[in-house]
Amino acid sequence: MVNIIHRVGVKAPVSGVYAALSTVEGVAEWWTIHTSGSSKIGGTIAVRFHSTDGKEIGNMTMEVIALDPNKKVHWRFTSGPEEWIGTDVTFTLSQDGEYTIVLFGHENWREGDAFTAHCSMKWATFLLSLRALVETGKGKPSPNDIKIDNWN
Amino acid sequence: MVNIIHRVGVKAPVSGVYAALSTVEGVAEWWTIHTSGSSKIGGTIAVRFHSTDGKEIGNMTMEVIALDPNKKVHWRFTSGPEEWIGTDVTFTLSQDGEYTIVLFGHENWREGDAFTAHCSMKWATFLLSLRALVETGKGKPSPNDIKIDNWN
Repeated sequence: MVNIIHRVGVKAPVSGVYAALSTVEGVAEWWTIHTSGSSKIGGTIAVRFHSTDGKEIGNMTMEVIALDPNKKVHWRFTSGPEEWIGTDVTFTLSQDGEYTIVLFGHENWREGDAFTAHCSMKWATFLLSLRALVETGKGKPSPNDIKIDNWN
Repeated sequence: MVNIIHRVGVKAPVSGVYAALSTVEGVAEWWTIHTSGSSKIGGTIAVRFHSTDGKEIGNMTMEVIALDPNKKVHWRFTSGPEEWIGTDVTFTLSQDGEYTIVLFGHENWREGDAFTAHCSMKWATFLLSLRALVETGKGKPSPNDIKIDNWN
Protein backbone atom coordinates (compact mmCIF):
# COMPACT_ATOMS: atom_id res chain seq x y z
CA MET A 1 0.00 0.00 0.00
CA VAL A 2 1.08 3.54 -0.78
CA ASN A 3 0.55 6.50 1.54
CA ILE A 4 0.59 10.23 0.95
CA ILE A 5 1.84 12.02 4.06
CA HIS A 6 2.36 15.71 4.80
CA ARG A 7 3.14 17.82 7.86
CA VAL A 8 2.10 21.43 8.28
CA GLY A 9 2.17 23.83 11.23
CA VAL A 10 -0.57 26.35 11.91
CA LYS A 11 0.11 29.29 14.21
CA ALA A 12 -3.24 29.04 15.99
CA PRO A 13 -4.89 27.09 18.81
CA VAL A 14 -5.73 23.48 17.99
CA SER A 15 -9.47 24.15 18.43
CA GLY A 16 -9.55 26.34 15.31
CA VAL A 17 -7.80 23.73 13.20
CA TYR A 18 -10.08 20.99 14.52
CA ALA A 19 -13.19 23.05 13.71
CA ALA A 20 -11.98 23.53 10.13
CA LEU A 21 -11.53 19.76 9.74
CA SER A 22 -14.52 18.39 11.65
CA THR A 23 -17.42 20.43 10.27
CA VAL A 24 -18.98 20.75 6.81
CA GLU A 25 -18.74 24.54 7.09
CA GLY A 26 -15.05 24.32 7.92
CA VAL A 27 -14.17 21.93 5.10
CA ALA A 28 -16.03 24.19 2.66
CA GLU A 29 -13.67 27.02 3.52
CA TRP A 30 -10.40 25.27 2.65
CA TRP A 31 -11.09 22.22 0.44
CA THR A 32 -14.10 22.92 -1.74
CA ILE A 33 -16.97 25.35 -1.42
CA HIS A 34 -19.21 22.51 -2.66
CA THR A 35 -19.17 20.49 0.57
CA SER A 36 -22.39 19.08 1.99
CA GLY A 37 -23.71 16.31 4.22
CA SER A 38 -23.30 15.27 7.82
CA SER A 39 -19.99 15.60 9.63
CA LYS A 40 -21.02 13.44 12.61
CA ILE A 41 -19.36 10.07 13.18
CA GLY A 42 -20.96 7.65 10.70
CA GLY A 43 -22.19 10.54 8.57
CA THR A 44 -21.42 11.02 4.89
CA ILE A 45 -19.87 14.16 3.45
CA ALA A 46 -20.00 14.90 -0.28
CA VAL A 47 -17.42 17.10 -1.98
CA ARG A 48 -17.50 18.37 -5.56
CA PHE A 49 -14.76 20.13 -7.49
CA HIS A 50 -15.04 22.56 -10.36
CA SER A 51 -12.72 24.20 -12.83
CA THR A 52 -12.49 27.98 -12.76
CA ASP A 53 -15.04 28.14 -15.63
CA GLY A 54 -17.61 26.24 -13.55
CA LYS A 55 -17.35 22.74 -15.05
CA GLU A 56 -17.51 19.88 -12.53
CA ILE A 57 -14.27 17.95 -12.74
CA GLY A 58 -14.63 15.52 -9.88
CA ASN A 59 -16.55 14.49 -6.80
CA MET A 60 -16.21 12.12 -3.86
CA THR A 61 -18.12 11.05 -0.80
CA MET A 62 -16.55 10.02 2.45
CA GLU A 63 -17.74 8.48 5.66
CA VAL A 64 -16.70 10.09 8.92
CA ILE A 65 -15.02 7.18 10.71
CA ALA A 66 -13.69 8.94 13.80
CA LEU A 67 -13.67 12.34 15.46
CA ASP A 68 -11.45 12.81 18.50
CA PRO A 69 -11.90 16.46 19.50
CA ASN A 70 -8.73 18.53 19.00
CA LYS A 71 -6.80 15.34 18.26
CA LYS A 72 -7.92 13.46 15.16
CA VAL A 73 -10.31 13.38 12.21
CA HIS A 74 -10.63 10.22 10.11
CA TRP A 75 -12.52 9.88 6.82
CA ARG A 76 -12.90 6.90 4.48
CA PHE A 77 -13.84 7.44 0.84
CA THR A 78 -16.88 5.54 -0.33
CA SER A 79 -17.31 6.95 -3.85
CA GLY A 80 -15.33 9.03 -6.30
CA PRO A 81 -12.33 8.14 -8.47
CA GLU A 82 -11.82 4.37 -8.36
CA GLU A 83 -8.36 4.88 -6.87
CA TRP A 84 -9.87 6.74 -3.88
CA ILE A 85 -12.54 4.23 -2.90
CA GLY A 86 -11.59 2.50 0.34
CA THR A 87 -8.69 4.87 1.05
CA ASP A 88 -8.42 6.67 4.39
CA VAL A 89 -7.63 10.27 5.19
CA THR A 90 -6.50 11.16 8.70
CA PHE A 91 -5.57 14.48 10.25
CA THR A 92 -3.69 14.03 13.53
CA LEU A 93 -3.32 17.20 15.58
CA SER A 94 -0.83 18.11 18.29
CA GLN A 95 0.47 21.25 19.91
CA ASP A 96 4.13 22.27 19.65
CA GLY A 97 4.81 25.69 21.12
CA GLU A 98 2.84 28.31 19.20
CA TYR A 99 2.02 25.80 16.44
CA THR A 100 -0.75 23.31 15.94
CA ILE A 101 0.95 20.53 14.01
CA VAL A 102 -1.19 18.73 11.44
CA LEU A 103 0.08 15.31 10.44
CA PHE A 104 -1.86 14.41 7.33
CA GLY A 105 -2.19 10.96 5.82
CA HIS A 106 -4.06 9.70 2.77
CA GLU A 107 -3.45 6.02 3.16
CA ASN A 108 -3.97 2.68 1.47
CA TRP A 109 -3.57 3.66 -2.17
CA ARG A 110 -3.10 0.59 -4.31
CA GLU A 111 -0.55 2.28 -6.58
CA GLY A 112 1.93 5.13 -6.50
CA ASP A 113 1.34 6.36 -10.04
CA ALA A 114 1.00 9.77 -11.72
CA PHE A 115 -2.53 10.25 -10.37
CA THR A 116 -1.33 9.54 -6.83
CA ALA A 117 1.49 12.04 -7.40
CA HIS A 118 -1.05 14.62 -8.61
CA CYS A 119 -3.18 14.06 -5.51
CA SER A 120 -0.15 14.34 -3.20
CA MET A 121 0.69 17.74 -4.70
CA LYS A 122 -2.96 18.87 -4.50
CA TRP A 123 -3.21 17.85 -0.84
CA ALA A 124 -0.12 19.95 -0.08
CA THR A 125 -1.80 23.01 -1.61
CA PHE A 126 -5.04 22.32 0.27
CA LEU A 127 -3.08 22.08 3.52
CA LEU A 128 -1.64 25.53 2.75
CA SER A 129 -5.26 26.62 2.22
CA LEU A 130 -6.24 25.11 5.59
CA ARG A 131 -3.41 26.98 7.27
CA ALA A 132 -4.36 30.26 5.58
CA LEU A 133 -7.98 29.80 6.62
CA VAL A 134 -7.17 29.25 10.27
CA GLU A 135 -4.42 31.88 10.47
CA THR A 136 -6.06 34.61 8.38
CA GLY A 137 -9.74 33.69 8.05
CA LYS A 138 -9.47 33.07 4.32
CA GLY A 139 -8.61 29.78 2.62
CA LYS A 140 -8.41 28.85 -1.06
CA PRO A 141 -11.07 26.18 -1.52
CA SER A 142 -12.03 24.88 -4.97
CA PRO A 143 -12.85 26.42 -7.43
CA ASN A 144 -10.35 29.06 -6.29
CA ASP A 145 -7.73 26.51 -5.33
CA ILE A 146 -4.10 26.58 -6.49
CA LYS A 147 -3.99 24.75 -9.82
CA ILE A 148 -0.95 22.55 -10.13
CA ASP A 149 -1.02 20.84 -13.51
CA ASN A 150 -3.20 19.98 -16.52
CA TRP A 151 -5.42 17.78 -14.34
CA ASN A 152 -6.18 20.87 -12.23
CA MET B 1 10.50 1.48 1.25
CA VAL B 2 8.54 4.73 1.30
CA ASN B 3 8.39 7.16 -1.62
CA ILE B 4 7.39 10.80 -1.82
CA ILE B 5 5.79 11.52 -5.21
CA HIS B 6 4.39 14.72 -6.69
CA ARG B 7 3.18 15.88 -10.11
CA VAL B 8 3.29 19.46 -11.31
CA GLY B 9 2.69 21.08 -14.70
CA VAL B 10 4.73 24.00 -15.96
CA LYS B 11 3.40 26.12 -18.82
CA ALA B 12 6.74 26.36 -20.60
CA PRO B 13 8.92 24.35 -22.97
CA VAL B 14 10.60 21.33 -21.43
CA SER B 15 14.07 22.80 -22.11
CA GLY B 16 13.51 25.54 -19.52
CA VAL B 17 12.43 23.07 -16.86
CA TYR B 18 15.36 20.80 -17.65
CA ALA B 19 17.82 23.70 -17.38
CA ALA B 20 16.43 24.59 -13.93
CA LEU B 21 16.93 21.00 -12.76
CA SER B 22 20.21 20.07 -14.40
CA THR B 23 22.46 23.02 -13.57
CA VAL B 24 23.81 24.44 -10.31
CA GLU B 25 22.62 27.90 -11.37
CA GLY B 26 19.12 26.59 -12.03
CA VAL B 27 18.80 24.70 -8.74
CA ALA B 28 19.96 27.82 -6.89
CA GLU B 29 16.99 29.73 -8.27
CA TRP B 30 14.24 27.41 -6.97
CA TRP B 31 15.63 25.19 -4.17
CA THR B 32 18.30 27.06 -2.26
CA ILE B 33 20.49 30.02 -3.18
CA HIS B 34 23.32 28.16 -1.42
CA THR B 35 23.88 25.57 -4.16
CA SER B 36 27.39 24.75 -5.33
CA GLY B 37 29.43 22.00 -6.95
CA SER B 38 29.39 20.16 -10.24
CA SER B 39 26.16 19.24 -11.99
CA LYS B 40 27.80 16.84 -14.47
CA ILE B 41 27.05 13.12 -14.28
CA GLY B 42 29.15 11.76 -11.40
CA GLY B 43 29.55 15.25 -9.94
CA THR B 44 28.57 16.28 -6.44
CA ILE B 45 26.23 19.16 -5.66
CA ALA B 46 26.08 20.67 -2.16
CA VAL B 47 22.97 22.46 -0.91
CA ARG B 48 22.63 24.44 2.32
CA PHE B 49 19.48 25.82 3.92
CA HIS B 50 19.07 28.81 6.20
CA SER B 51 16.35 30.30 8.33
CA THR B 52 15.18 33.79 7.48
CA ASP B 53 17.52 35.17 10.18
CA GLY B 54 20.53 33.58 8.48
CA LYS B 55 21.14 30.53 10.69
CA GLU B 56 22.08 27.34 8.83
CA ILE B 57 19.41 24.74 9.52
CA GLY B 58 20.45 21.93 7.21
CA ASN B 59 22.66 20.79 4.38
CA MET B 60 23.01 17.87 2.04
CA THR B 61 25.21 16.68 -0.79
CA MET B 62 24.04 14.63 -3.70
CA GLU B 63 25.68 12.79 -6.55
CA VAL B 64 24.34 13.37 -10.05
CA ILE B 65 23.51 9.81 -11.13
CA ALA B 66 21.86 10.47 -14.50
CA LEU B 67 21.03 13.34 -16.83
CA ASP B 68 18.85 12.59 -19.85
CA PRO B 69 18.38 15.93 -21.61
CA ASN B 70 14.79 17.19 -21.47
CA LYS B 71 13.71 13.84 -20.00
CA LYS B 72 15.18 13.02 -16.61
CA VAL B 73 17.44 14.16 -13.78
CA HIS B 74 18.48 11.70 -11.08
CA TRP B 75 20.29 12.55 -7.84
CA ARG B 76 21.37 10.32 -4.94
CA PHE B 77 22.02 11.84 -1.52
CA THR B 78 25.43 11.07 -0.06
CA SER B 79 25.38 13.25 3.06
CA GLY B 80 22.87 15.22 5.10
CA PRO B 81 20.14 14.08 7.47
CA GLU B 82 20.61 10.38 8.18
CA GLU B 83 17.17 9.67 6.71
CA TRP B 84 18.22 11.17 3.37
CA ILE B 85 21.47 9.28 2.84
CA GLY B 86 21.07 6.73 0.08
CA THR B 87 17.70 8.08 -1.05
CA ASP B 88 17.07 9.00 -4.67
CA VAL B 89 15.43 12.03 -6.20
CA THR B 90 14.21 11.83 -9.78
CA PHE B 91 12.52 14.41 -11.98
CA THR B 92 10.90 12.82 -15.04
CA LEU B 93 9.79 15.28 -17.70
CA SER B 94 7.23 14.95 -20.46
CA GLN B 95 5.23 17.24 -22.69
CA ASP B 96 1.43 17.32 -22.55
CA GLY B 97 -0.07 20.08 -24.69
CA GLU B 98 1.13 23.45 -23.41
CA TYR B 99 2.49 21.88 -20.19
CA THR B 100 5.78 20.33 -19.26
CA ILE B 101 4.78 17.68 -16.75
CA VAL B 102 7.24 17.06 -13.91
CA LEU B 103 6.84 13.73 -12.18
CA PHE B 104 8.87 14.04 -9.00
CA GLY B 105 10.00 11.17 -6.81
CA HIS B 106 12.05 11.11 -3.61
CA GLU B 107 12.42 7.38 -3.19
CA ASN B 108 13.72 4.73 -0.86
CA TRP B 109 12.97 6.33 2.51
CA ARG B 110 13.24 3.75 5.26
CA GLU B 111 10.28 5.18 7.19
CA GLY B 112 7.17 7.23 6.59
CA ASP B 113 7.32 9.29 9.76
CA ALA B 114 6.74 12.94 10.66
CA PHE B 115 10.07 14.01 9.15
CA THR B 116 9.19 12.29 5.86
CA ALA B 117 5.81 14.05 5.98
CA HIS B 118 7.58 17.39 6.54
CA CYS B 119 9.88 16.74 3.57
CA SER B 120 6.94 15.75 1.36
CA MET B 121 5.23 19.05 2.12
CA LYS B 122 8.47 21.01 1.59
CA TRP B 123 9.08 19.34 -1.78
CA ALA B 124 5.58 20.39 -2.88
CA THR B 125 6.39 24.01 -2.09
CA PHE B 126 9.75 23.79 -3.86
CA LEU B 127 8.00 22.38 -6.94
CA LEU B 128 5.72 25.44 -6.88
CA SER B 129 8.93 27.49 -6.69
CA LEU B 130 10.35 25.60 -9.69
CA ARG B 131 7.18 26.30 -11.65
CA ALA B 132 7.23 29.98 -10.70
CA LEU B 133 10.88 30.26 -11.74
CA VAL B 134 10.34 28.76 -15.17
CA GLU B 135 7.03 30.51 -15.85
CA THR B 136 7.85 33.94 -14.42
CA GLY B 137 11.65 34.07 -14.00
CA LYS B 138 11.45 34.22 -10.21
CA GLY B 139 11.37 31.25 -7.84
CA LYS B 140 11.32 31.09 -4.05
CA PRO B 141 14.56 29.35 -3.10
CA SER B 142 15.73 29.09 0.52
CA PRO B 143 16.04 31.24 2.59
CA ASN B 144 13.00 32.89 0.98
CA ASP B 145 11.13 29.61 0.64
CA ILE B 146 7.59 29.01 1.87
CA LYS B 147 7.85 27.95 5.51
CA ILE B 148 5.44 25.16 6.35
CA ASP B 149 5.86 24.28 10.02
CA ASN B 150 8.10 24.65 13.08
CA TRP B 151 10.86 22.67 11.37
CA ASN B 152 10.86 25.32 8.63
